[in-house]
Amino acid sequence: MSRPINLTTVQWTDMPLPELCGHAARWGYDGLTLACHPRHFDAGRARQDLDYVDEVAHLLRSHGLRVNALAAHMLGQAVCDPVDDRHRNILDDAVWGDGEPEGVRRRAAEAMAALPAAAARLGADTVVGFTGSPVWHMFMLFPPVSQDDIQSGYQEFADRWHPILDAFDDARVRFALEVHPTEIAYDYWTTARTLDALGHRPAFGLNLDPSHFLWQGLDPAVFAYDYRERLYHVDLKDAVLRTDGRAGRLGSHLPWADPRRGWDFVTVGHGDVDFEALIRTLNAIGYDGPLSVEWEDAGMDRLTAAPQALSRVRELAAISPADASFDASFGHR
Amino acid sequence: MSRPINLTTVQWTDMPLPELCGHAARWGYDGLTLACHPRHFDAGRARQDLDYVDEVAHLLRSHGLRVNALAAHMLGQAVCDPVDDRHRNILDDAVWGDGEPEGVRRRAAEAMAALPAAAARLGADTVVGFTGSPVWHMFMLFPPVSQDDIQSGYQEFADRWHPILDAFDDARVRFALEVHPTEIAYDYWTTARTLDALGHRPAFGLNLDPSHFLWQGLDPAVFAYDYRERLYHVDLKDAVLRTDGRAGRLGSHLPWADPRRGWDFVTVGHGDVDFEALIRTLNAIGYDGPLSVEWEDAGMDRLTAAPQALSRVRELAAISPADASFDASFGHR
Amino acid sequence: MSRPINLTTVQWTDMPLPELCGHAARWGYDGLTLACHPRHFDAGRARQDLDYVDEVAHLLRSHGLRVNALAAHMLGQAVCDPVDDRHRNILDDAVWGDGEPEGVRRRAAEAMAALPAAAARLGADTVVGFTGSPVWHMFMLFPPVSQDDIQSGYQEFADRWHPILDAFDDARVRFALEVHPTEIAYDYWTTARTLDALGHRPAFGLNLDPSHFLWQGLDPAVFAYDYRERLYHVDLKDAVLRTDGRAGRLGSHLPWADPRRGWDFVTVGHGDVDFEALIRTLNAIGYDGPLSVEWEDAGMDRLTAAPQALSRVRELAAISPADASFDASFGHR
Amino acid sequence: MSRPINLTTVQWTDMPLPELCGHAARWGYDGLTLACHPRHFDAGRARQDLDYVDEVAHLLRSHGLRVNALAAHMLGQAVCDPVDDRHRNILDDAVWGDGEPEGVRRRAAEAMAALPAAAARLGADTVVGFTGSPVWHMFMLFPPVSQDDIQSGYQEFADRWHPILDAFDDARVRFALEVHPTEIAYDYWTTARTLDALGHRPAFGLNLDPSHFLWQGLDPAVFAYDYRERLYHVDLKDAVLRTDGRAGRLGSHLPWADPRRGWDFVTVGHGDVDFEALIRTLNAIGYDGPLSVEWEDAGMDRLTAAPQALSRVRELAAISPADASFDASFGHR
Amino acid sequence: MSRPINLTTVQWTDMPLPELCGHAARWGYDGLTLACHPRHFDAGRARQDLDYVDEVAHLLRSHGLRVNALAAHMLGQAVCDPVDDRHRNILDDAVWGDGEPEGVRRRAAEAMAALPAAAARLGADTVVGFTGSPVWHMFMLFPPVSQDDIQSGYQEFADRWHPILDAFDDARVRFALEVHPTEIAYDYWTTARTLDALGHRPAFGLNLDPSHFLWQGLDPAVFAYDYRERLYHVDLKDAVLRTDGRAGRLGSHLPWADPRRGWDFVTVGHGDVDFEALIRTLNAIGYDGPLSVEWEDAGMDRLTAAPQALSRVRELAAISPADASFDASFGHR
Amino acid sequence: MSRPINLTTVQWTDMPLPELCGHAARWGYDGLTLACHPRHFDAGRARQDLDYVDEVAHLLRSHGLRVNALAAHMLGQAVCDPVDDRHRNILDDAVWGDGEPEGVRRRAAEAMAALPAAAARLGADTVVGFTGSPVWHMFMLFPPVSQDDIQSGYQEFADRWHPILDAFDDARVRFALEVHPTEIAYDYWTTARTLDALGHRPAFGLNLDPSHFLWQGLDPAVFAYDYRERLYHVDLKDAVLRTDGRAGRLGSHLPWADPRRGWDFVTVGHGDVDFEALIRTLNAIGYDGPLSVEWEDAGMDRLTAAPQALSRVRELAAISPADASFDASFGHR
Repeated sequence: MSRPINLTTVQWTDMPLPELCGHAARWGYDGLTLACHPRHFDAGRARQDLDYVDEVAHLLRSHGLRVNALAAHMLGQAVCDPVDDRHRNILDDAVWGDGEPEGVRRRAAEAMAALPAAAARLGADTVVGFTGSPVWHMFMLFPPVSQDDIQSGYQEFADRWHPILDAFDDARVRFALEVHPTEIAYDYWTTARTLDALGHRPAFGLNLDPSHFLWQGLDPAVFAYDYRERLYHVDLKDAVLRTDGRAGRLGSHLPWADPRRGWDFVTVGHGDVDFEALIRTLNAIGYDGPLSVEWEDAGMDRLTAAPQALSRVRELAAISPADASFDASFGHR
Repeated sequence: MSRPINLTTVQWTDMPLPELCGHAARWGYDGLTLACHPRHFDAGRARQDLDYVDEVAHLLRSHGLRVNALAAHMLGQAVCDPVDDRHRNILDDAVWGDGEPEGVRRRAAEAMAALPAAAARLGADTVVGFTGSPVWHMFMLFPPVSQDDIQSGYQEFADRWHPILDAFDDARVRFALEVHPTEIAYDYWTTARTLDALGHRPAFGLNLDPSHFLWQGLDPAVFAYDYRERLYHVDLKDAVLRTDGRAGRLGSHLPWADPRRGWDFVTVGHGDVDFEALIRTLNAIGYDGPLSVEWEDAGMDRLTAAPQALSRVRELAAISPADASFDASFGHR
Repeated sequence: MSRPINLTTVQWTDMPLPELCGHAARWGYDGLTLACHPRHFDAGRARQDLDYVDEVAHLLRSHGLRVNALAAHMLGQAVCDPVDDRHRNILDDAVWGDGEPEGVRRRAAEAMAALPAAAARLGADTVVGFTGSPVWHMFMLFPPVSQDDIQSGYQEFADRWHPILDAFDDARVRFALEVHPTEIAYDYWTTARTLDALGHRPAFGLNLDPSHFLWQGLDPAVFAYDYRERLYHVDLKDAVLRTDGRAGRLGSHLPWADPRRGWDFVTVGHGDVDFEALIRTLNAIGYDGPLSVEWEDAGMDRLTAAPQALSRVRELAAISPADASFDASFGHR
Repeated sequence: MSRPINLTTVQWTDMPLPELCGHAARWGYDGLTLACHPRHFDAGRARQDLDYVDEVAHLLRSHGLRVNALAAHMLGQAVCDPVDDRHRNILDDAVWGDGEPEGVRRRAAEAMAALPAAAARLGADTVVGFTGSPVWHMFMLFPPVSQDDIQSGYQEFADRWHPILDAFDDARVRFALEVHPTEIAYDYWTTARTLDALGHRPAFGLNLDPSHFLWQGLDPAVFAYDYRERLYHVDLKDAVLRTDGRAGRLGSHLPWADPRRGWDFVTVGHGDVDFEALIRTLNAIGYDGPLSVEWEDAGMDRLTAAPQALSRVRELAAISPADASFDASFGHR
Repeated sequence: MSRPINLTTVQWTDMPLPELCGHAARWGYDGLTLACHPRHFDAGRARQDLDYVDEVAHLLRSHGLRVNALAAHMLGQAVCDPVDDRHRNILDDAVWGDGEPEGVRRRAAEAMAALPAAAARLGADTVVGFTGSPVWHMFMLFPPVSQDDIQSGYQEFADRWHPILDAFDDARVRFALEVHPTEIAYDYWTTARTLDALGHRPAFGLNLDPSHFLWQGLDPAVFAYDYRERLYHVDLKDAVLRTDGRAGRLGSHLPWADPRRGWDFVTVGHGDVDFEALIRTLNAIGYDGPLSVEWEDAGMDRLTAAPQALSRVRELAAISPADASFDASFGHR
Repeated sequence: MSRPINLTTVQWTDMPLPELCGHAARWGYDGLTLACHPRHFDAGRARQDLDYVDEVAHLLRSHGLRVNALAAHMLGQAVCDPVDDRHRNILDDAVWGDGEPEGVRRRAAEAMAALPAAAARLGADTVVGFTGSPVWHMFMLFPPVSQDDIQSGYQEFADRWHPILDAFDDARVRFALEVHPTEIAYDYWTTARTLDALGHRPAFGLNLDPSHFLWQGLDPAVFAYDYRERLYHVDLKDAVLRTDGRAGRLGSHLPWADPRRGWDFVTVGHGDVDFEALIRTLNAIGYDGPLSVEWEDAGMDRLTAAPQALSRVRELAAISPADASFDASFGHR
């Protein structure tokens, strides 16, 4: 498999893109999953200024880095979320506007629909991101929620995203939702419901980040196998569980890296995710999209973590099927 | 230990109280943890009509049932929650009013402050319930949340509850928060933070329902031991885990009893909670409050489940320490 | 659910049917899954003698026992197995004939095709049984086996069974393969392949016996959910695992009840099968066929085991969904 | 199997024997494993007064209770232990004397040698007990201990016990060491070493109490199978593990029933011992000695625990092999 | 320990031996476990042509590679197997002949008996291989099989192998059966039965390949310890388990590397085998035979896997006991 | 964190200090946790000869090695232990004297009280060591022990150690007990009791060696977090568990490296301790004392193990928190 190994830039947007390109190239990454952020890829500007897009593309190429995918998590989050103050910090002024929720959602949808054309111009065939969710906050079913309420939420999601996905189809670019708590799909069965809600249209696929699966008790390899038709992007991030009877699966509102948390994100190779099972399954299903390293490890400096993760991912990438079966040579003929 | 074995009536409010008393008494329950609900114990009416309170007390006594505790989950939920449409169905018209969130919260607080006097009149020394939470919905820390935001939420909780607890102190009644997702305390460490936020005042204690602990990976016996000073009420409800790699810990928005859920509530004795460890710990710490059976098992009819649960709880209650140590008689003298 | 609780008679064929009916009725069984065996239900005679069928039906009815299903494991085994000496003891003389494998297979297929008409006359809508397998013995893939060889085996199976299933369709009776090592389907994925090989025709369904799943590491509740469309019969038999590092999953050719075996069959309630998860899933998918107790416990006398198992199954059968949801009464309106 | 179900009286020596016989008979026990204690069976007196022995035998018979075994734990403990103050309370004045360790050991050995004759007179063929150990206290190998030191301890044990075992041979009675921490054999491999040290002489066998095995991580069924030639007595007592990361396997010097302990003894059926695996193994190896219920559960009153344990053991005793194999009837002939 | 680290050539027979020697030497292997195959070591030719044997020996020596062992799995398989079409591809034309099973078995036995002399000439003291089995296919005990049938199979095995082992004794070479499903010994207890059947004659020993043990639930270190007297060869190959409730322990007839399989072979260091426990046990029992790396990993190219495995095995080989105990220096003297 | 990585010299006292310094410096250690032993740091001589202390300090400095801590396990062991022959080999002649237990204990206490001044002169702020224990040998509570006996033992410990700790306070040096079986604190709850017995005086802290925690079922990270105020030193040593049902947690008196033991010490990185969880917790609590590698691996030569362990510890040390949170850059502003 010649899958590119990317670095996701979402957690590096405080660093100017040229500097980050320098690091990534020196460490040996093949490409970037590039964040839609004023300092990395300014989606607003890209809409109006094709030269800007070409400059960014040129910058990456000049470092020998490919762009396979854009990351538009923040923007996507606002498309069908119950917007509140927390969203102000993740949105452009233009999208936030006066902050009236429905207006924010509408403007976010418009901005998202403009993205595939820019992505195509840049050379990326995939936009990775979030969708937001009208129903996430009801997952505990208390105060009481009816299944009709839930179903309405999935319908609202579909209604809001279909027009966006039309724009993706027009640009021959795919959207890949990162299956993640707080989103419309956060586990195996909500993914099924999400794909059903959209009629399984090919424009909408999945970004699998196994770190969100570990603490939910989900098997990323099973997920990859069962949803292989819609697996468009893979993030590699690890997570660790703590099971001492005091640490809880919901995290206790404690900050990252607090040892009382029931789970935490860590650098690839430092946690409990079975990456080898995942890679072997990706090999088996013929997945040939990016493996994108995501640094989210509050206990480890990113300048140490990013090259170390790459080194582990290169080991994983060396697990590649033999041409012939090992029992092919058992006989004589 | 002569702990009363109660039935919680919250899940039976469609059944008139006299009929429920008949069932409970016939099955052999010692008492009720009585729901604040128009058909069981109408808190609004109780505030103004002492005779009503006495009638309810008489009704229970006439069936040989004690009232140890009131259950005010719905009302408490509104005290510091971000109120939305889901709350309309769990609140009185008087409390809901025009549904403007801050007004709802204020009226809920007033109604809650009136409850301890009624409880005392009824003969109950504990009100079990929820608190709501300004921060629960932020537990995933995304969209990004700062620890200051969290801390403000705990402060808001304390500010809203201190005056209520003053009323509890006046009536010499205690409030016992059911530690539960969606509440200000939902696990071990948020309980610590909650008690800290209130300065550990004795008016505010805990209702331990181990079914919420199981799927969060928490050990109810450890919790009971460590928080023994504030353990005022114990609910007995079971839960079951499903760990097939597709079922997720967050429940997938699936209805109760759907076999795809990662966990579910079940009748005592049908799940994975280690009740024996819990009971032995309750014995060791000298807990002498109620053991209150809560029926929440969408896969089992309550008329079957409630007496069956009682039978299992009676077995558990028979586990009671010996007067003398078994090695007391090893020697001769 | 009003599912009948049956006793499977396959392991009781040394006992005359009237005596067995007496036991089963006295213990409280609802019906029998009746073995095709000269002493219980002589399939050969039934083909020619309708009065015989009616007499058997009458015998059962006279004990208040229903016949929901016939059990034709031995006959079915010969349909597409590589026949050898072991098969002589499980077949009629008429089917065995001279023992030449292909002739045996052909005669077994004919006898099997005659069975649905007899079953229908008896009042049973299902024939439970084995299929045999051209490929089972190759499961270790050594000496080397190609996937073409395997595929040919599944094709052979389909070719041999389609005509039989036509006869089932004619009689409006269904065949239910017991998923079981030594058969064409013995686990989750071979079941998928088997159903594919037959084009998922409704005449061919499944008998789920969880005791075969336990030691293979399979989850019976997941199986029941995923194959709910073709689940026609459920056997209740338990199994126990031994995991001491010396006992092996393949059984070491040791006899049943030898404590060195890595697993063993035991009476319902004595092993490691999670029957409650299975029953709750059967409730959820609306399975309304028989629950058939199968005694195969070399460590426990069947006259003790059969009534004891029934008592445990009655407990399981009491787990039946509530009419209303437990949170239906949380609100006031 | 017609194994007697006994009650061990060691933990009841504060209760006069006639009273205990009344209880045991009423609860349904078959016999007693009778403690050598002045109030139950005064070994010192028995040596000199045959009538006394006959009276005790008569007392038990009059309640329909058999005596299969004597329990001489306290006396045996002193035979090769480093005697200190703790031993004073478990020994007769005559054995303790001036407390000088070597003298105590010598007198304990003499008293032990006198026991088999009394046992035989009483009708018991087995004396269950402890041996003490010159090496137990060195198990952590710190302060540093050489294997020579350990070996010397096993030799000393053998030297002290061979003469005692000669007396057992003379009386045709067997000694059964309860494998137990603090004794010469406390686990699987020390049992092997102990039997080796004595040349595997038949007079010296084993009493298996699975409660000591659980927290050491030992498999009682494996032990029973491997040492089946020397298994002379089985105690049924349960134990429970606590694995919360704070509770330790060594018990923290905490009293029984303290919930902080890493393990505790509990009544049969209340803990984690797999009794069914043990019973099935006992059936398989043809063990026909007593199953002796031992009450050591600081969290449960013995008057509740003893009959409850019996009821569970009767269930276990009902697990008894079938005469014929369940597949005997699969064929026709 | 100065155990040679070999590469097993069975899976490389499509590659000419000189080329393979070049690879193995360059990667740093100490020697080869050389496959009996026309392209590696042509056993038929070796019987008649001593010069050929010397040439092969010289070839290996010229690359600095030792020959410790021959691998004769294919030939051995035919000695007491129920021969069918699958065997044609693993046998020489001379051995296969007309394919009549008994003739094939007889010719395979003759060829096997000729091997030890060739091995000795080559400088190898061990022939590793399979035995075939008259009973393997009956492991499920269905269609019903009696223990007499099983016992006859073991007797047949012994009868067929004793004369072969005589030839081994004559040549002072040992046979080491790879304990493996499809063979006469495939787990712990069948190994015991196999050794018993042969009277534990030293000519017949064992080749331990832990990858076959993992998915059977067997502990390779326990096996190595208990059978230390007959452990003549060790293969190092890893295996991985998948336990998602759908993947089965029997492999579902799925090809290697299919992610639906319940287990799979993988390169050393990529699976779940506890090699460190095995190596430490091999150190403790003084095993000084070869550690032979076997590449069977359908998900990893052998040219990548073979040097990577060697690197891991060198790490394991560095685990070698200290001369002095670490507590030797705790004291002063 | 700039924590020094030390080598503990206790297991190297047969090697002259200059030679050991050469090794340690060459391997890359930052410092030594220096054993109080005539060949490394002669505590007796140091008391009287300040030049000697300075020479030792100079020797280490000349190799670029820091001294952060002295190790006085042997001496400390005698302070409140029931002294017997095993202690002779771990004590100086001067301390042992005539071996009369109380005299030994008194002289050990005097020598210990003299140590902090020497440590301070050397530049070390911590003395790591053992305390001995009057109660350790009673941990099984048999022969019967009362809680009063235990409590007296803790009081005796406090009485003997308070004067020693006064000397530590005078020298502004801290004592760090290695929590360890055979000592006054050997697990979580005995540590609590020990600190209570001393009134939590700051002179007395803890040395955490996770290898002792593993087999006791204790979580070292939880321990580090809960006792963070008194964590003065951390040893890095690994341990491995064997759980085959025959190997016992108490070690069976078997020598180190015997594969029948239920657990064993091994080099860092070769066992089951979760060092990453420990390091991340040490980071979170701000522990900045030494990480001291302790070689106790009877299966691995120390000259191989010590540099290998260092390499693993350097990897662990690279896990150091980021300055900024990874979600700091999620927003735009």
